[in-house]
Amino acid sequence: MKGGVMAEKIDLGKKVLSENDRLAGEIREKLSAHRIAALNFVSSPGSGKTSLLERTLAALKDELRIGLIAGDVQTENDANRLIKAGGRMVRPLVTGGSCHLDARMVSRVLPEMDIEQLDLLIIENVGNLVCPSSYDLGEDMKVVLISTTEGDDKPLKYPGMFRRSSIMVINKIDLLGTSDFDMAQVKANALSINANLKIFELSCRTGEGLDAWLDWLKQLVGEKRGE
Amino acid sequence: MKGGVMAEKIDLGKKVLSENDRLAGEIREKLSAHRIAALNFVSSPGSGKTSLLERTLAALKDELRIGLIAGDVQTENDANRLIKAGGRMVRPLVTGGSCHLDARMVSRVLPEMDIEQLDLLIIENVGNLVCPSSYDLGEDMKVVLISTTEGDDKPLKYPGMFRRSSIMVINKIDLLGTSDFDMAQVKANALSINANLKIFELSCRTGEGLDAWLDWLKQLVGEKRGE
Repeated sequence: MKGGVMAEKIDLGKKVLSENDRLAGEIREKLSAHRIAALNFVSSPGSGKTSLLERTLAALKDELRIGLIAGDVQTENDANRLIKAGGRMVRPLVTGGSCHLDARMVSRVLPEMDIEQLDLLIIENVGNLVCPSSYDLGEDMKVVLISTTEGDDKPLKYPGMFRRSSIMVINKIDLLGTSDFDMAQVKANALSINANLKIFELSCRTGEGLDAWLDWLKQLVGEKRGE
Repeated sequence: MKGGVMAEKIDLGKKVLSENDRLAGEIREKLSAHRIAALNFVSSPGSGKTSLLERTLAALKDELRIGLIAGDVQTENDANRLIKAGGRMVRPLVTGGSCHLDARMVSRVLPEMDIEQLDLLIIENVGNLVCPSSYDLGEDMKVVLISTTEGDDKPLKYPGMFRRSSIMVINKIDLLGTSDFDMAQVKANALSINANLKIFELSCRTGEGLDAWLDWLKQLVGEKRGE
C-alpha cells in the first residue's frame, strides 16, 4: 500500500514535469522570437529578491523595458513594491498555497503583458530554495540569491538550486561581520556544486556592488537583441 | 489533458496526506505513551533553527534528555553541529531532494532512538516556509522561526505555516535596526493570521531573550510528564 502510493507519486511527478517542460519550451520560443532576455529569480524567503528588483528598476527603468512577474504564495505585496519602484509592466502571480511557480501559471499571465514592448522579463519565484529548482519557466537562466545573514553552507544543503542556476547573487554584504558567515567559504561551496556559476556580491541597502550587476544585465539584453 | 493531470495530482495529494496523517497519529500515540513532548521546528533556510537548538542543548542537556532528528535536503551538517553542541541522541534525516519531512521518514528513524530515555523530541524540518506546513509528523506543536533580517511581511506571504504553528520565535534581535524590519508589524501580521501564537524574541548570537524560551521548554516537558 505504502509502496503503491510512492510509485504512483513518482509516475505522476514525471508526468507533471514533462507537461511543464513542454509548456516552458513554448514560452521560451515565444520570448526568443521577440528577442526578450528572461530571468527566473529564486531564493529563500527574505534573501532580497524584491529589494534587488526595486534597485534594478530604479536604475534601469528608463534604459530598458522591463516586465516583471512577481510570484507569491499569498498577497500582492511584492508586485505593489515593484510598481512603486517604477515598474510599468508588473503582474502579480499568487499561487494560493503552491510552493513554486510553474510554466502553466506563467503562460496564463504572459498574454496579459504586452511582450512586444519588452527587452527583459524577470520572474520572481516563490521564496523557497527547494521546489522551484525543478520547474523550468522558459527562462534563459535562473538567478539564485543568498544573503550573508543565512548560513554559508546553503549551497551544500540545497544543491539542486545552485546546480540549476547560472548566476549567484550574494546580497546584504553590508552585514558581513555580524555573523560567522564566511564569504570565501560560501563561494567555494557554491562552485563545488556548480563550477560555472557567475557570482555577484552586493548590498541592496547601501548600493555597494550594484554597478557590476546592472552592467551585466545590460550586456545580457544587448546580446539577446543581437547588438 | 492538462485538467486530467491536475485532477490526478489533487487526488494523489489527498491520498499521500491521509496516509501521512495515519502514520503521524501512530507516532503521536507512541510518544504520548512515553510522556515525551515533541516539537517540529520549521522556518526559511537560515533563520536559525540549528543555532537555537545548539543554544538549547548547551543550556539544558544536563537537565532534560533531548532527542533530535535533524532533517536536511542534503548533508548531515546540522546533525554534526548538534552532536558537537552536546546532543547525545541526534539522528540526521537526509531527504535526498524532498522539500519537507514526512511522517514515514520520522517513523523510519524513531526505532533507532532509545525513546524510553527521552523527555523531549525535537524534529528540525527542512528549511522551507511552504511545504512542511502540510505534513504532520506526530509532534505536539510546530515552532516557526523567523529572523529580523527577513521581511516583516513573511507571516502574510506564507500564512499556512503561521496558521499551523503554535509558537513563533523571532531570532536575530541583535540585528534589529540594520534593516527596516518592524518588530511591532511582524507580530501584528503573525497574530492576524493566528491569534493564538505564543511569541518569543531572542538572539542566538548574544543570548538575549533565551531564558524565557528555555523556561517555557522546561515547563512544557514538566506538564507532559504530569508534574
